[in-house]
Amino acid sequence: MCMAVQHHISADTAVVYKDRNGHVIELNVETNTTTLLLENTTFVTFKASRYSVSPDLRFVLLAYDVKQVFHYSYTASYVIYNIHTREVWELNPPEVEDSVLQYAAWGVQGQQLIYIFENNIYYQPDVKSSSLRLTSSGKEGIIFNGIADWLYEEELLHSHIAHWWSPDGERLAFLTINDSLVPNMVIPRFTGGLYPKGKQYPYPKAGQTNPTVKLSVVNLYGPAHTLELMPPDSFKSREYYITMVKWVSNTKAVVRWLNRHQNISILTVCETTTGACSRKYEMQSDLWVPKQNEEPIFSRDGTKFFMAVPVKQGGRGEFHHIAMFIVQAKSEQIMVRHLTSGNWEVIKILAYDESTQNIYFLSTEESPRGRQLHSVSTVGSLNRQCLSCNFLKDQCTYFSAKFSPMNRHFLLHCKGPGVPVVSVHSTTDSGKFYILENNAVLKEAVFKKKNSRTEIKMLHIEDYELPLQLSLPKDFTDRNQYALLLMIDEAPGSQLVTDKFHIDWDSVLVNSDNVIVARFDGRGSGFQGLKILQEVHRCLGSVEVKDQIAAVESLLKQPFIDPKRLSIFGKGYGGYIASMILKSSERLFKCGAVVAPITDMKLYASAFSERYLGIPSKEENTYQASSVLHNLHGLKEANLLIVHGTADTKVHFQHSAELIKHLIKAGVNYTMQIYPDEGHNIASEKSKYHLYSTILGFFSACLKEETPILPQEPEEDE
Amino acid sequence: MCMAVQHHISADTAVVYKDRNGHVIELNVETNTTTLLLENTTFVTFKASRYSVSPDLRFVLLAYDVKQVFHYSYTASYVIYNIHTREVWELNPPEVEDSVLQYAAWGVQGQQLIYIFENNIYYQPDVKSSSLRLTSSGKEGIIFNGIADWLYEEELLHSHIAHWWSPDGERLAFLTINDSLVPNMVIPRFTGGLYPKGKQYPYPKAGQTNPTVKLSVVNLYGPAHTLELMPPDSFKSREYYITMVKWVSNTKAVVRWLNRHQNISILTVCETTTGACSRKYEMQSDLWVPKQNEEPIFSRDGTKFFMAVPVKQGGRGEFHHIAMFIVQAKSEQIMVRHLTSGNWEVIKILAYDESTQNIYFLSTEESPRGRQLHSVSTVGSLNRQCLSCNFLKDQCTYFSAKFSPMNRHFLLHCKGPGVPVVSVHSTTDSGKFYILENNAVLKEAVFKKKNSRTEIKMLHIEDYELPLQLSLPKDFTDRNQYALLLMIDEAPGSQLVTDKFHIDWDSVLVNSDNVIVARFDGRGSGFQGLKILQEVHRCLGSVEVKDQIAAVESLLKQPFIDPKRLSIFGKGYGGYIASMILKSSERLFKCGAVVAPITDMKLYASAFSERYLGIPSKEENTYQASSVLHNLHGLKEANLLIVHGTADTKVHFQHSAELIKHLIKAGVNYTMQIYPDEGHNIASEKSKYHLYSTILGFFSACLKEETPILPQEPEEDE
Repeated sequence: MCMAVQHHISADTAVVYKDRNGHVIELNVETNTTTLLLENTTFVTFKASRYSVSPDLRFVLLAYDVKQVFHYSYTASYVIYNIHTREVWELNPPEVEDSVLQYAAWGVQGQQLIYIFENNIYYQPDVKSSSLRLTSSGKEGIIFNGIADWLYEEELLHSHIAHWWSPDGERLAFLTINDSLVPNMVIPRFTGGLYPKGKQYPYPKAGQTNPTVKLSVVNLYGPAHTLELMPPDSFKSREYYITMVKWVSNTKAVVRWLNRHQNISILTVCETTTGACSRKYEMQSDLWVPKQNEEPIFSRDGTKFFMAVPVKQGGRGEFHHIAMFIVQAKSEQIMVRHLTSGNWEVIKILAYDESTQNIYFLSTEESPRGRQLHSVSTVGSLNRQCLSCNFLKDQCTYFSAKFSPMNRHFLLHCKGPGVPVVSVHSTTDSGKFYILENNAVLKEAVFKKKNSRTEIKMLHIEDYELPLQLSLPKDFTDRNQYALLLMIDEAPGSQLVTDKFHIDWDSVLVNSDNVIVARFDGRGSGFQGLKILQEVHRCLGSVEVKDQIAAVESLLKQPFIDPKRLSIFGKGYGGYIASMILKSSERLFKCGAVVAPITDMKLYASAFSERYLGIPSKEENTYQASSVLHNLHGLKEANLLIVHGTADTKVHFQHSAELIKHLIKAGVNYTMQIYPDEGHNIASEKSKYHLYSTILGFFSACLKEETPILPQEPEEDE
Repeated sequence: MCMAVQHHISADTAVVYKDRNGHVIELNVETNTTTLLLENTTFVTFKASRYSVSPDLRFVLLAYDVKQVFHYSYTASYVIYNIHTREVWELNPPEVEDSVLQYAAWGVQGQQLIYIFENNIYYQPDVKSSSLRLTSSGKEGIIFNGIADWLYEEELLHSHIAHWWSPDGERLAFLTINDSLVPNMVIPRFTGGLYPKGKQYPYPKAGQTNPTVKLSVVNLYGPAHTLELMPPDSFKSREYYITMVKWVSNTKAVVRWLNRHQNISILTVCETTTGACSRKYEMQSDLWVPKQNEEPIFSRDGTKFFMAVPVKQGGRGEFHHIAMFIVQAKSEQIMVRHLTSGNWEVIKILAYDESTQNIYFLSTEESPRGRQLHSVSTVGSLNRQCLSCNFLKDQCTYFSAKFSPMNRHFLLHCKGPGVPVVSVHSTTDSGKFYILENNAVLKEAVFKKKNSRTEIKMLHIEDYELPLQLSLPKDFTDRNQYALLLMIDEAPGSQLVTDKFHIDWDSVLVNSDNVIVARFDGRGSGFQGLKILQEVHRCLGSVEVKDQIAAVESLLKQPFIDPKRLSIFGKGYGGYIASMILKSSERLFKCGAVVAPITDMKLYASAFSERYLGIPSKEENTYQASSVLHNLHGLKEANLLIVHGTADTKVHFQHSAELIKHLIKAGVNYTMQIYPDEGHNIASEKSKYHLYSTILGFFSACLKEETPILPQEPEEDE
């Protein structure tokens, strides 16, 4: 919505991006000169919707017939396009025509190509050479090489890519995920044919058999040779996940192994020439180990690495801070030095500059709702500096950043509170930057339409100070009474009240229907220390519900909230919390809409449900207690809208079906909207439009002020 | 709803029935004495929900764990109960325990038993003997012996039973239905488990491969011997259905064969000792052959048979009348004599009395909305007499009847317009009868609640006089204006405006919401001659729609109908017609509710769709033209409620899913209600209750009179 451009810093001086007109451009950040790599018409010619430029900037890989599979994954067909000669050819596995690939991308050097077909990895040293099949065990829906299954994609890696290049492009690490014992979920199909066939795929629900995983490294030069990297001894006879793999040199990779209970994680560094892995750091938790995907940053010589780890900050519990781990040369023992501290969180370590011995990172030091780019010295007095704090100060307090391979430049992405801005900065010359995209068009459009303003109040709940954000209609005055819509977050450990720029359907309610929209980050929300984050352990659906209700009750003390016109919205996990709130806060809310709600954690993914509620057992009733499906009488008075796509592969339609069945049993009224053959994100344009009008119509009708019919003054006869 | 009793005349003097208290009673109609066969508590003891008494009246077969499969079929487990000793044992195939059977029933003599397990027929000569497996080709979901597949059950036989006993019980005729080439439809399952599995079953949609069928006769005495009865030569290389099998003597069976186009049917009489079949009567039609299940009645010596056949009655087209077919002894030629004629229909021939040479039959001679029992002499001047016309004259004009094997008695079932009454009559002593059930309790209840009255108007549309029935609220006066609900029939060729007693949810609207309910039998409706019935040929969804709209428009000339509050309801085919009406009568109707609507005939059963629209071909667009799914803009202004059970095996949820998808595309609003894992008839008590409240709530809200806000008189100060 906000951005038409895509960027990546491909070499230390070149930024390749797609501009607002759809042309692919190479920018030399040293000389500030641009080169047109690909005209926008090329996309039209090949019906291509995705592209990537080869490391040597000579070829483009164009994807067409792109079809979404799960959250990140998609299948597509590919052509390779020669930028100079305009020559084009299909990318196909040997002896296959018109292939549909699960993945295709450039490697890290020259024209190296990798692609995945029928769950096996194929490699091409350059665009013209023939393909080498690197694996043969791949089996559709059963054994996945280099690509994630549903669980790894959605809940563990947060990506469908399950392979990693060594910096020199000579080795490839990849996961082999074996789902042969994982139960299959069936997704029905209803439309588009006389006998529509459903599809099935492995999906381990809470307590069910998980996939097994192994990590291998294949040698791409010389005789192809594959070596398996073994888990730490203590994990060998246990169930575990691999949640992070990163190359730290041309032959060494760092790997994070996590037990199924998710309370022990072990970081090992593996010598991929021998397969020997040595344990570097182990984390244990009474609850669960957070930041499972975090990539440690290693010094070039491998004697130091940096990672954000929980550090206790007095009574307010643990916060993530940068630790420097120093490997003692002889003893192999590891010394730890903490580089930051305070009641704020290090969000991400971005780079380590060998020359200055500085670490670059994002943190919430200035505000838990913001993200600023900082540097910290790893030596001496650990001098800390904010690099983004003064950049477009009025408009930007929430940043992300990306460093070039040699750390000479970085892309700075201002994400709010103003319209997003993308710029390139020099690390050596701090004043030097180019703005790649200022979103002027968007800025003007927003300026014209958006008249609401936001206000943040801090609420004191159970020893915490928690932020409540209100979006107020333009002519807001506290002498009027307004309806309220409470938005619930889509995932635990996430954050709703931030400085990020966003416009969504709820803005319409604020601007057109005079509704106040509230967002509240209670216990269970993220980036405000581990204590708040982990309060939900073993009682998911309980503390969050209490806090949201408390937030609304505190709002009711304000004169400008109409206590008779309260409503709530949530999707996925947010739909779950919204349902739990409606159940337990009898008659507080007039209406609620839930989209693709989780209604029973037992029906949801193992890696998610077990993180919060443990593995289901007969002795404990944590799952029973957290289910929406019992004691539904609390919903009797509420006006409930249930929305679900029938082909949702994340939160199965099953959740809403069970809810409806139980509502019917309990004699509870509701309205519903299904989207046949749509997934978790109602994706097709028409359906999306329909979804928004349905939700807006629902809230608009429910929150309408009931104007009492007053006796009219009789007209005077004159 | 109306009747707690079930009856059958088991021998010429005994009627076995379940009385209002649930006891199974044998009544001797000669002596008017009753015997208690089974106490109601027995049903409770065995959790049995169905029973049948052996021909020798000594045993009862009790079914428990009854689970509905399709419309008529169900699976169950069975016990045999000895009425005298109260001894009980399970009915199981050899070497199977706790079996679930697809069918089990007594034969026609003594204690003969038949049951069907895994699509094979088993036979027991008596309750204690061991079972004989009569077929071995049975294969679940593929080859069906003695039991119908979905198509034969729902659309051809209108029963799941596909076997027939010879009168002496020595032979059994049965169908073998082979679905191995029929495409399977998948019915998803959403609730009741972590990984609910769907089910699939063969379902030929329009134009798809049909099952093949063969008819065999097995000899049960002496060496078991199975003989196949061959179709007429002209059908041998064509696709055909078998739509009727009936034994006419101990060795002869009459069979009706129907080509796939359903415009040629051939009646053959087969000598089951040799397998030789001879053709007796062939019917051809330019449209389709009606009354495909009609069983001809044969004289004992087989020289005569009686059947209702279309006979032209001047300008008003053909009506069904009784024909007597006389087989010339030597030439085997057949003479035909028509026994009845007139602008009315013979509904069913019930019996032929050899001694009096009278035929008993039901007809619409008195009124197309009634059914009266008549007799007609087959000799002389064909003297015709009404036997039921004077029986409970004020209360009864719609009868069905059942004759005892020797035609000495008949059960008369008065079905309306008053509450149903069941009585036993003598054919020899016309004054003698017993009333078995007078439904006094129901009568009182109805008398207290039902205050509406009905009125019939005849409308003149395209040369036809067609009946429109109005149910008027109790205080109806034509000085008021009322909302209107138009009810659409559930199947073509059926009849909505009859004298049958019925109370349904729409009565609530009449009585509580002051809504006028209208029913109209337009072209395509049945029992008023073939011309009206067959007007829909090749234009299903067109003439019915025109007539219904014409009926409503004629009503709008009445001052008492509020033109702003018109609504419509239909289920299945009725949902189809209702949708077509809403589409094409822009803004005439304020709202409409469709339950399990057919939305595209291409997605519905071959035998149904092809009867009306022919086999789909690329050259013709009859299917396209009859589809609801195009040009949906006509629905834009309507307030549409779509209701569907997701496990509907008759009209697949697919129909509603396609409709919704197309409505979303067209930007049309609607509301919906789905019933997870419920079938075509939303069957579970809670769901049914929810369904009725949903529909009533929908119409009640939509049809509510909008009271204009009038300026109130100011109160006078005194």
